[in-house]
Amino acid sequence: MNNETWLNKVNWSDDGLVPAIAQDAATGRVLMVAWMNREALKLTWQKSEAVYWSRSRKKLWHKGEESGHIQKVKEIRLDCDGDVILLQIEQQGGIACHTGRESCFYSRLEQGRWVEVDEVLKSPDEIYKR
Amino acid sequence: MNNETWLNKVNWSDDGLVPAIAQDAATGRVLMVAWMNREALKLTWQKSEAVYWSRSRKKLWHKGEESGHIQKVKEIRLDCDGDVILLQIEQQGGIACHTGRESCFYSRLEQGRWVEVDEVLKSPDEIYKR
Repeated sequence: MNNETWLNKVNWSDDGLVPAIAQDAATGRVLMVAWMNREALKLTWQKSEAVYWSRSRKKLWHKGEESGHIQKVKEIRLDCDGDVILLQIEQQGGIACHTGRESCFYSRLEQGRWVEVDEVLKSPDEIYKR
Repeated sequence: MNNETWLNKVNWSDDGLVPAIAQDAATGRVLMVAWMNREALKLTWQKSEAVYWSRSRKKLWHKGEESGHIQKVKEIRLDCDGDVILLQIEQQGGIACHTGRESCFYSRLEQGRWVEVDEVLKSPDEIYKR
């Protein structure tokens, strides 16, 4: 279990990162994409909860640490080039996006315009000022 | 239709690229992730077929141009940060991966090892030497 060969098989970018897609294990909906470094991926595997690397805050980000919207990880996959991770998750609270929506992908292209087609389930104020 | 305001709403990287996830519109399976530049995204929208930017070949890549594995695009979404595209597609031939598998995400992490869990549907030789 201390063997980290599997982490070496990931094609980390020059910045030491890899994008990770979080997909709802039950519905198949793609909820978000965030970044992981080596430590984040290792922790995700160990905890079976998604841990990302926040590029803006430059630190590890245990998803849900503030919002409570933890992502329980059911499966971890790697693509053929080794440069994208796909997580099958259970989204606690049913909200992955910081805007209070289920998914970050709520804007749909309609006749040359991005239209916000998904509803806000909980206001960000309510989520983050607990 | 010539108004390209929507293309300006995408947060292009310094290299002028954005990652695009191709998801099977019928099954929800995540098939692959590739990159798009502005022209690729515009063509994807115009043709309703996925066009990517090949970083290795440094040119536009109309997915399926060699393999016949065209991706018919049913929906284009953008995430909350504007830096990831999500396509709902119909995968012609049922194969998205250059290895001849349905999805590029065929390696699953099992007890600290990546295991190839999906079968090759058609050999790459057969796909590319038509």
